[in-house]
Amino acid sequence: MTARFVSLDTYDVRFPTSRELDGSDAMNPDPDYSAAYVVLRTDEVDGHEGHGFAFTIGRGNEVQTAAIAALRPYLAGRLVKNVLDDLGAFWRELVHDSQLRWLGPEKGVMHMAISAVVNALWDLKAKQAGLPLWQLLASMPPEELVSLVDFRYLTDALTPAEALELLQPGSVGREERVAELLAHGYPGYATSPGWLGYDDAKLRRLCQEALDAGFTQIKLKVGADLADDIRRLRIAREVCGPDIRIAVDANQRWDVGQAISWVGALAEFNPWWVEEPTSPDDVVGHAAIARGIAPVPVATGEHVQNRVVFKQLLQLGAVSYVQLDAARVAGVNENIAILLLAAKFGVPVCPHAGGVGLCELVQHLSLFDYVAVSRSMDNRVIEYVDHLHEHFLDPVQIRAGRYLAPQAPGFSSTMRPESRARFAFPDGPAWSRTV
Amino acid sequence: MTARFVSLDTYDVRFPTSRELDGSDAMNPDPDYSAAYVVLRTDEVDGHEGHGFAFTIGRGNEVQTAAIAALRPYLAGRLVKNVLDDLGAFWRELVHDSQLRWLGPEKGVMHMAISAVVNALWDLKAKQAGLPLWQLLASMPPEELVSLVDFRYLTDALTPAEALELLQPGSVGREERVAELLAHGYPGYATSPGWLGYDDAKLRRLCQEALDAGFTQIKLKVGADLADDIRRLRIAREVCGPDIRIAVDANQRWDVGQAISWVGALAEFNPWWVEEPTSPDDVVGHAAIARGIAPVPVATGEHVQNRVVFKQLLQLGAVSYVQLDAARVAGVNENIAILLLAAKFGVPVCPHAGGVGLCELVQHLSLFDYVAVSRSMDNRVIEYVDHLHEHFLDPVQIRAGRYLAPQAPGFSSTMRPESRARFAFPDGPAWSRTV
Repeated sequence: MTARFVSLDTYDVRFPTSRELDGSDAMNPDPDYSAAYVVLRTDEVDGHEGHGFAFTIGRGNEVQTAAIAALRPYLAGRLVKNVLDDLGAFWRELVHDSQLRWLGPEKGVMHMAISAVVNALWDLKAKQAGLPLWQLLASMPPEELVSLVDFRYLTDALTPAEALELLQPGSVGREERVAELLAHGYPGYATSPGWLGYDDAKLRRLCQEALDAGFTQIKLKVGADLADDIRRLRIAREVCGPDIRIAVDANQRWDVGQAISWVGALAEFNPWWVEEPTSPDDVVGHAAIARGIAPVPVATGEHVQNRVVFKQLLQLGAVSYVQLDAARVAGVNENIAILLLAAKFGVPVCPHAGGVGLCELVQHLSLFDYVAVSRSMDNRVIEYVDHLHEHFLDPVQIRAGRYLAPQAPGFSSTMRPESRARFAFPDGPAWSRTV
Repeated sequence: MTARFVSLDTYDVRFPTSRELDGSDAMNPDPDYSAAYVVLRTDEVDGHEGHGFAFTIGRGNEVQTAAIAALRPYLAGRLVKNVLDDLGAFWRELVHDSQLRWLGPEKGVMHMAISAVVNALWDLKAKQAGLPLWQLLASMPPEELVSLVDFRYLTDALTPAEALELLQPGSVGREERVAELLAHGYPGYATSPGWLGYDDAKLRRLCQEALDAGFTQIKLKVGADLADDIRRLRIAREVCGPDIRIAVDANQRWDVGQAISWVGALAEFNPWWVEEPTSPDDVVGHAAIARGIAPVPVATGEHVQNRVVFKQLLQLGAVSYVQLDAARVAGVNENIAILLLAAKFGVPVCPHAGGVGLCELVQHLSLFDYVAVSRSMDNRVIEYVDHLHEHFLDPVQIRAGRYLAPQAPGFSSTMRPESRARFAFPDGPAWSRTV
């Protein structure tokens, strides 16, 4: 009860993914998937650590790491119990720190740094509780969940009272939903076939592999060249047939008018959704695109900076799928707000994943959503990308196109120490041999 | 012609303004006005340097400084002429760098870092030309100005052809407008009276001093306590009489509904505008507030992250005044885009200033706007705050409530080297004696 935080250590970890064009899309031709990684240590006898990270794609990861280090004074010497018992208060303390706030506010590098630390605290709390995070969250009473959410700037769309009302039915059938998840998992979809940097033969082969693996939805990157997109979609449809869902992802490549005309040219392939058609900041533009390409639905979220922008996308009817990201908004607390907003507006949440460890994190949020918030899996899928999982101690497990429910205590966010060392930038062996 | 960039040096400079409660408002009770400062040096024989900075309010300035340093490789060894001759291309290279972009995109710490470097390049270019920046910009042909702007995500509101059309009339009467600015300057307004941390007697005295100094508009901070706001506005109206414009500034303190009711309670004092009523990210909320408090106008901009958000505020009719900031969006180039958007929608630009050196920067943008873009001073004013100017080599000059047109070559962004040294954080003498 008197244990204190004794350290906040940061690590600049980068994987040289650009060498294979993994992760290549119309905006990101050569990402080196990276983590600005944080480990929180305490003097508790149990020895548990809290692990978290911000995901970046290479250059600038040192800036992201410096931003996490800037949060060290907010934890140093604090009583662990005081912080973990009221993570809502701690979240507000970080996000509303008046001086740090100027660096956003609530967006970009500083907000992602807060995400890393907040998620590390949740990892620690779940480890202490001996539960996977999704079960820890799902076991909390509605009042406690509401207290974790900052309703500032949300009350024109969602009040604390409405949030409570949304959560109250969660107790009914909770054990059945938990049992269902433990038995059958949660549906995923496969992005790996569709990176722009792959040639047609590799696209065809990977589509078939996704089907063989049991996925019922895949996603293709589009937006660089219309003729290429049409050819690639035709190949994917040939392999997948008419019943497999094929989503497309433009990674913010278009302006509003261009999005509408380009998607019009792809409509014959029946895209399940069109993802990130334009700037993630452009809620008005997303609404215009949604009207312009209906009935093809719009999805976005991986670059949406915070709950205030999600609120507006929902208010304007601009998105049919909310693609929250575990590490771009300020961690678990803000994602609970986003799950509640989506539930209020009746829009399914289909998290963004991939990168480094994002699949590991978001599965907990979707499982919690199913047990306690939306209580539905209809039209809900978690993105799945099949690389870099081997660097985590508790990697996601996929069977027949579904995420198995994680059962180890924590947030599945702990990277193997040997991976952290090997891919340390710029001095780890994976880099020092080549750069 | 063969000179190259030889260094990009950064400085973490902080002024202990919180000791006097200068700059205190409802969201920022104790700012330490700070600059993440950059100096670009070349091997040109003229010895000119480019100076720029991001403004922060204290903690985290080291993160902002690290972000500027991350841009060093983009200039190191490059030919000065190549970069300065096409600053539109260089802007795109930085802003659209696929890996750095992930850290925003186009927002927060990384975007402000780009601002600092881009503004330093403009400072260098203007020094080389022997012109103050506003005159350098005002002398450029419309085609060149348009080439500086990135129209990505803007074309649903403003195309390059429309921008050209807006700029073409600028050549008519240009010399007369330049002469008028040189003779009479540009109107300012005074924020210094209204910081929340000041007591009533100080408020009264400072209001009178602003009137005596010739200002016809002042601004009061509001939003922490309604009874206080009413009392302070009553005092200000007593001192100022009915004809002086009194704007109020809530610094993002309210939710949408609260903004509407709070402003309703202040309406009897006839506020000239209500500034930052809510989150700068909430364009839909600003539109609701604008409808709810009409005819009291809404102003915002100092925390608006980029041109895409300004575009939406204008599309929705959510703002009556655009308060661009010189160093939050990505520098001069993006501010030209914002001036053009405002002109397209017929909304006056009244820049945010104060902080460290922001008055020095924005005056150039407003003067350029008057000569070449809006060609109007109607309802246009530049914010003026009377501290920290002494740290700049070419400080703003105010006479009878008006900014005198700066005439020294450059962007007025050069801080005195002795100030940079004295307020260096944490080792400069201003800090090492006290912390």
